[in-house]
Amino acid sequence: MAMKVALLGCGVVGAEVVQLVDRQASELAARVGTPLEIGGIAVRRLGRERGTGVDPELFTTDATELVTRPDIDLVIEVIGGIEPARSLILEAVKAGKSVVTANKALLAEDGATLLSAARENNVDIYYEAAVAGAIPLLRPLRESLAGDRVQRVLGIVNGTTNFILDRMDTQGAGFAESLEEAQTLGYAEADPTADVEGFDAAAKAAILARLAFHTQNVTAADVHREGITEVSAGDIASAKAMDCVVKLLAICQRAEDGESVGVRVHPVMLPRRHPLAAVTEAYNAVFVEAESAGRLMFYGPGAGGGPTASAVLGDLVAVARNRLAGTSMGEGAHDTGLPVHSMGQTVTRYHISLDVADRPGVLARCAEVFAQMGVSIKNVRQEGSGEDAQLVLVSHTAPDSALAETVERLRGLDMVRSVASLMRVEAFSEDV
Amino acid sequence: MAMKVALLGCGVVGAEVVQLVDRQASELAARVGTPLEIGGIAVRRLGRERGTGVDPELFTTDATELVTRPDIDLVIEVIGGIEPARSLILEAVKAGKSVVTANKALLAEDGATLLSAARENNVDIYYEAAVAGAIPLLRPLRESLAGDRVQRVLGIVNGTTNFILDRMDTQGAGFAESLEEAQTLGYAEADPTADVEGFDAAAKAAILARLAFHTQNVTAADVHREGITEVSAGDIASAKAMDCVVKLLAICQRAEDGESVGVRVHPVMLPRRHPLAAVTEAYNAVFVEAESAGRLMFYGPGAGGGPTASAVLGDLVAVARNRLAGTSMGEGAHDTGLPVHSMGQTVTRYHISLDVADRPGVLARCAEVFAQMGVSIKNVRQEGSGEDAQLVLVSHTAPDSALAETVERLRGLDMVRSVASLMRVEAFSEDV
Repeated sequence: MAMKVALLGCGVVGAEVVQLVDRQASELAARVGTPLEIGGIAVRRLGRERGTGVDPELFTTDATELVTRPDIDLVIEVIGGIEPARSLILEAVKAGKSVVTANKALLAEDGATLLSAARENNVDIYYEAAVAGAIPLLRPLRESLAGDRVQRVLGIVNGTTNFILDRMDTQGAGFAESLEEAQTLGYAEADPTADVEGFDAAAKAAILARLAFHTQNVTAADVHREGITEVSAGDIASAKAMDCVVKLLAICQRAEDGESVGVRVHPVMLPRRHPLAAVTEAYNAVFVEAESAGRLMFYGPGAGGGPTASAVLGDLVAVARNRLAGTSMGEGAHDTGLPVHSMGQTVTRYHISLDVADRPGVLARCAEVFAQMGVSIKNVRQEGSGEDAQLVLVSHTAPDSALAETVERLRGLDMVRSVASLMRVEAFSEDV
Repeated sequence: MAMKVALLGCGVVGAEVVQLVDRQASELAARVGTPLEIGGIAVRRLGRERGTGVDPELFTTDATELVTRPDIDLVIEVIGGIEPARSLILEAVKAGKSVVTANKALLAEDGATLLSAARENNVDIYYEAAVAGAIPLLRPLRESLAGDRVQRVLGIVNGTTNFILDRMDTQGAGFAESLEEAQTLGYAEADPTADVEGFDAAAKAAILARLAFHTQNVTAADVHREGITEVSAGDIASAKAMDCVVKLLAICQRAEDGESVGVRVHPVMLPRRHPLAAVTEAYNAVFVEAESAGRLMFYGPGAGGGPTASAVLGDLVAVARNRLAGTSMGEGAHDTGLPVHSMGQTVTRYHISLDVADRPGVLARCAEVFAQMGVSIKNVRQEGSGEDAQLVLVSHTAPDSALAETVERLRGLDMVRSVASLMRVEAFSEDV
């Protein structure tokens, strides 16, 4: 007796899913315990050649009718966007169907609502494909580390920006030039805003924070976000001088008192010996620091039809098995309710390059500013001389607000011509 | 109503588990849906201070009585070794208890028996900690990739040998010297045989192959095994000359026709641009090539009380949840029955450095031998001259038996003084 699957959306990922369900039919049946069968495919317009080789009869434009159809057991949502995806998933859940989705925007904005609706109706909502494509990440965070305490998550979760920064690092190219190459190669969209401004990464950061810290409070709006459009060849060079690379990271961090979490996306200088530094091209990777497990990293392709479809099918097998067993994951039932603290309260470290007047007392004046703000200096070096004199300072960790204010005051010094480069620095947590 | 857990063995990992179950009590209860409670701890001798701070009343020397006690719901086995672990786990399973174990030797030798016993009794046997410590690996292979087709698994699954090879690479040290350092730092045992001869890695390779290819046929005895004791400073130097590092890899590979699998453990030269090449110190990492997902890597600490305990607890939460839901994983129900082919049939590539007589015709004679064996040469270079003349050849892929025979025939040539270095080369699969 086959389980019937409704597919919402039939773009690149949807078509790939249909083909895999067909090609892997026997393996899937064996792993689930019963065959899986596509019962219907909702699309916006009929008649277009889908290249899926499936019975045209399966296509419908009435998604709501499809997700509530009595013979449908499971629903796969690959439309993307907030609406109609959200309403359709809620309809499906209320009708007792389990759902697999790759919709990061929706999960980031309204995941708590969806997951609690799923719990009320004893069905599953799985979404491995929503973060870092095919990399098995949500399941490990949710299940493998269920007996551990995650301290921090550092993620390269946007392939486009990683590709651009990698090119800037390896070829000394500028941002505009590297973006153009990414667009030519199809790694970046014509309108790259969602990627280069960090919106995509911020949505994933919110999802990661919810899972890592078992708190339902985090949405994309809570994530401090800075993109990579301001990253210059000079920043990359400064990073190299410190044996670092520049990466756009999604960072979810437990406060030292453990009573709140910080969630942010911004460029950072990362030591080359850090495993994330070796993640090149458009690959994604997520580095997890857990109390007992220590340092873990998950690496793989962050996007693409095949990888995303693989993640969707993994989830499909899981929800199908749960349904056969008459159970469900009940994700989100355990809500620590940990609040999100502001970026200002988040403890960070700054790398600051200042164009300064080459005369005695410069360092003393700058050091004075750090002291006034209660920020200590980890190391400092003077470079060049005369017109090209630069003072390069790396701070110790301090609240981001104190560091930001320190920079403002440095800007105000008459002997400081300009701030040539400013970036946060991340390394390993000492406590892991 | 608490779930009662029986702990078999109370060494480093066992003691850590007891402490975590206590320290994380509320989180665990929230994640499981009911509290977990240690109901008894089986040890060989009573009276020794366990440093666990638990009620001495919990300790017993009668493990069989403990695992069959009616009030016990779950069993954690951290004794290690084949017996009495196997009998105790089977007793527990027959008595309807789900089991979490970190016992790689037992899983590798007799996993199929244990898993089928578990299926018959509708209970779980989880063993994430058995391979690569805390790295969530078995769950992703078993569940996340359930809708994909794994082509190849390359794993650094033994921290001791990775530490030694890393030292040889970074410090130009010899094997003996690096082993001594590993022993001083506690990364290697006084008797390092299990690690340096590849027995530990072979057991893990068997487990990985079973999961990756859903075949129950693979045991440690089926794994072709070569250790690192023969790896010389010269081999490391040859690898560097090719911009490679030497790693001891566990390799599970689907034959091209997909009808059988090869499982082996031996040192390989790996390009530095490969993600596994960046895995240093005693860290573990497993690189998976899947048809749809592409290239994935899982990285983390491969051993240690904390990491192992973290993996055990993750499994404990999972089996407890399954039990509450009245379900079980039923692992192994899907058996492709793929047979294991011999090392000779496995397709590999060789790097061969020959000390040769420096006279015309040497390359011609060697190339002739390759041709006779139907092995083509990928690249060749001559180094040094006179007494120090070396011919360095890298073959194309060919059955290992043909490559081994080629080397034997080269040895037989009068102009070949000796085989200076011989090692297999791995890279990315072209098809992934």
